[in-house]
Amino acid sequence: MTPPLTSRRNPRVAAAAALHRRRERAATGRTLLEGPHLLDAAIAARIDIIEVFALEGSAPGDVPADVSIVTAPVMARIAATDHPRGPLAVIAIPEPGALRHHDTVVLWDVADPGNAGTLLRSAAAFGYDLAVTAGTVDLWDPKVLRAAAGAHFGRTLVRLGPDPLPELAAAGLAPVAAVVDGGRPPEQALAVSGPVALLVGNEPHGLPDPVIAAAPGAVTIPMPGRTESLNVAAAGAILLYERRRLRPLS
Amino acid sequence: MTPPLTSRRNPRVAAAAALHRRRERAATGRTLLEGPHLLDAAIAARIDIIEVFALEGSAPGDVPADVSIVTAPVMARIAATDHPRGPLAVIAIPEPGALRHHDTVVLWDVADPGNAGTLLRSAAAFGYDLAVTAGTVDLWDPKVLRAAAGAHFGRTLVRLGPDPLPELAAAGLAPVAAVVDGGRPPEQALAVSGPVALLVGNEPHGLPDPVIAAAPGAVTIPMPGRTESLNVAAAGAILLYERRRLRPLS
Repeated sequence: MTPPLTSRRNPRVAAAAALHRRRERAATGRTLLEGPHLLDAAIAARIDIIEVFALEGSAPGDVPADVSIVTAPVMARIAATDHPRGPLAVIAIPEPGALRHHDTVVLWDVADPGNAGTLLRSAAAFGYDLAVTAGTVDLWDPKVLRAAAGAHFGRTLVRLGPDPLPELAAAGLAPVAAVVDGGRPPEQALAVSGPVALLVGNEPHGLPDPVIAAAPGAVTIPMPGRTESLNVAAAGAILLYERRRLRPLS
Repeated sequence: MTPPLTSRRNPRVAAAAALHRRRERAATGRTLLEGPHLLDAAIAARIDIIEVFALEGSAPGDVPADVSIVTAPVMARIAATDHPRGPLAVIAIPEPGALRHHDTVVLWDVADPGNAGTLLRSAAAFGYDLAVTAGTVDLWDPKVLRAAAGAHFGRTLVRLGPDPLPELAAAGLAPVAAVVDGGRPPEQALAVSGPVALLVGNEPHGLPDPVIAAAPGAVTIPMPGRTESLNVAAAGAILLYERRRLRPLS
């Protein structure tokens, strides 16, 4: 049996650890995922697994890739957290998809990886495609992968260009902008019969004013409480649920 | 003018930094909050502000407490993050409240500070009280405060004892357990006319089986997608919204 990898300067270890950086992911077309649940989801979706790192005694069973046993400090170096339990897998980032004539959530300059991942998870649960503007956090950031809990794999993930509204219109999607106030109630705004593009904005700034002005179907969640707004992932989940209640998937 | 505090070993600096630890918060009855938004919310709610630390040139204007100007390294020591912008405030933790005859969200052993804070923020937005089991993350953890974005202040926050279900029943609250499958649809389970206690569980384990068995009003969000579940804060937001749609606050 091969002895465990002990050097944090091993080139493969350094290359895997570098995937926390967006530039490195873009250059290599690879990213990093952590934990048995994400690895199982990636394997089930036939994602290309490049290599796997695991702690001694906890190597995953049936992985279509080389598995290197590493020491705890090496694992911590790759994971960039204090006590990762592994396994960690380097995977090839799948090609982005194209817009379809289907309900789509659009993350418009969403900056927080946890929020982006949670929105992707909710989109998957309710049967929506997902698209992102160029200003949104990289969906293949390991932190987004963790928050989405496997929802990346086997889904349509679209990267929009510099002028997203015409692109959405060309795909036949009716834009509905989620706004903190001034929009119509969900039961009206989300009852549209054709497919919609539900636009959710940046924290804490929301959608840009020109986007709100150009998207006639603005929606506002009624809030009897006193706080100024909901978390964007909480608001998104509500709107995705409410649209599906009004317009079930056929 | 007093020169800025430069020592990371200054006793007041060390005492503030220690408030990231639950034990220290329990011993002192104090916590730490970061950023102008949270500080403004605390002041508006007449929370007892003990002292404030700010970077040179960014001291807050009208604070009912001593403000110490500190260097960036001192600020980083207190905040326990890399580039905090401040201000940081040490505040007295308000006394917990008591259960009322009013819709209440119950966090049952919710472990993640971000999820707990987001649930509190949603509870505030939709006019619910909030209660926590002893196994839930400390609501006064600075990370929970950040995620809740000011929703802590001026709200009823209840700490439940070791046997929460009888406690909820004694307050006249009908328990509704959020479960991944096997519960009734939201439109049925959440239409109860009296006040409810909406129970949301631990990530990833959910509510304990005996709790689900004892709470006759289980609710399940219908999900047409393929993922196994929603994030707990996303699921909670949906249920709080749906209950309020069916039973508006009078």
